[in-house]
Amino acid sequence: MPRYRLDIEYDGTPFHGWQKQADGPTVQGALQDALVAYCGVNTVVHGAGRTDSGVHAFGQVAHIDLPETRAPDQIRDALNFHLRPLPVVVLRARPVPASFDARFSAVRRAYRYLIENRRAPTAIHTNRRWQVPRPLDVDAMAHAASHFLGHHDFTTFRAAGCQAKSPMRTVDHCTVTREGDLITIDVRARSFLHAQVRSMAGSLKMVGEGRWAADEIAVALAARDRKRCGPVAPACGLYFMQVDYPDAV
Amino acid sequence: MPRYRLDIEYDGTPFHGWQKQADGPTVQGALQDALVAYCGVNTVVHGAGRTDSGVHAFGQVAHIDLPETRAPDQIRDALNFHLRPLPVVVLRARPVPASFDARFSAVRRAYRYLIENRRAPTAIHTNRRWQVPRPLDVDAMAHAASHFLGHHDFTTFRAAGCQAKSPMRTVDHCTVTREGDLITIDVRARSFLHAQVRSMAGSLKMVGEGRWAADEIAVALAARDRKRCGPVAPACGLYFMQVDYPDAV
Repeated sequence: MPRYRLDIEYDGTPFHGWQKQADGPTVQGALQDALVAYCGVNTVVHGAGRTDSGVHAFGQVAHIDLPETRAPDQIRDALNFHLRPLPVVVLRARPVPASFDARFSAVRRAYRYLIENRRAPTAIHTNRRWQVPRPLDVDAMAHAASHFLGHHDFTTFRAAGCQAKSPMRTVDHCTVTREGDLITIDVRARSFLHAQVRSMAGSLKMVGEGRWAADEIAVALAARDRKRCGPVAPACGLYFMQVDYPDAV
Repeated sequence: MPRYRLDIEYDGTPFHGWQKQADGPTVQGALQDALVAYCGVNTVVHGAGRTDSGVHAFGQVAHIDLPETRAPDQIRDALNFHLRPLPVVVLRARPVPASFDARFSAVRRAYRYLIENRRAPTAIHTNRRWQVPRPLDVDAMAHAASHFLGHHDFTTFRAAGCQAKSPMRTVDHCTVTREGDLITIDVRARSFLHAQVRSMAGSLKMVGEGRWAADEIAVALAARDRKRCGPVAPACGLYFMQVDYPDAV
């Protein structure tokens, strides 16, 4: 069975997250339905990460196994044809070795969180950014973000229902930058816990508002206590940006 | 009557353009309705430019006259409250002298046109960019764009129904740049003719596709013939970015 890598973009707004479920539209379900329509194959689309309801992706990666070889550009165009009018598109399809696994081969994942920091609501970026009216101190947020770097127990910053066996994760990039009213939080790690980035973003916003001292992030992290997390940031500001693999497939 | 300047952002998708009309929702109509709801005043909101149906704005400017003085931040917040859930927001309200006219005092207007240049449709920027599947040669487009610079008769590049008395306009900035799949066309002039930027963008796309030589822009311009214009680019990619005034009010 030839295996293909798919690079996928989606607007998470109308979906109940990535993972297929009995009720409600999901990104994985939409892709699997498109595969049935395209070539009659009922197969699992294995994603690199399970994004929550309302979370977007510019660079989700998945793999699929097809019963026979197909031209990659035909796979991309046919799936995009059958996905319409849903806001999910296949950016690229490529043949990969059978050893490639979108989830387990990944060595690094990148997420981005966008905040529109101004008094007026957003008219153009609705469902695309978290609008925070109170002016945020980006320098304080950037300093606080540095506390997340390294290998830590992220119990404070994962959803209560997170099913990962270990709460240990290694964050190797975490920056906060401002360009006008737009604040961008970039986070990268080999893998993440459930709701980890939104938990981190929500706590960084507390620092930006001056309600937490920057060092309170370190205290909350050390506490390994979910109750010490700030209010979780809404899904609409979160983007799954990129997945890296060792062989650059 | 105290006069106020309003800076306005909107998603043009659900509107029949800026200008109030008997049928269909317009941005000007929405603002005027919000003013009635806020302070019972039925007054004209005078915009710096009349954008077409589907065209967006990050920086439209307007002026209004109110019967009495109000706190600018209250005007902004109250209008935004009454504008909901329409995708129009007042970014800022400021008192200005009675001599200030959003349209006639303007010395420069900036428009931006966004093209998503890739085979796959866009999932996230739907109604926000023109998706062009064929790879565009941005260097050729940038060279072609330079032909628009200066004082010219733009008869070729204005809508047949354009009501401006003179077709002469001075374009003092016109650039085409690429960042990944996103192509950005930036155009600035004191004022524009009806559908001028979309006519220019549509013709530049012909150059980018190699269907026109870059110099064909100069030939089309010199022809002063609407029939020589390329297909007009769709409204969804166009943004009214900024208006400049001499006194920086």
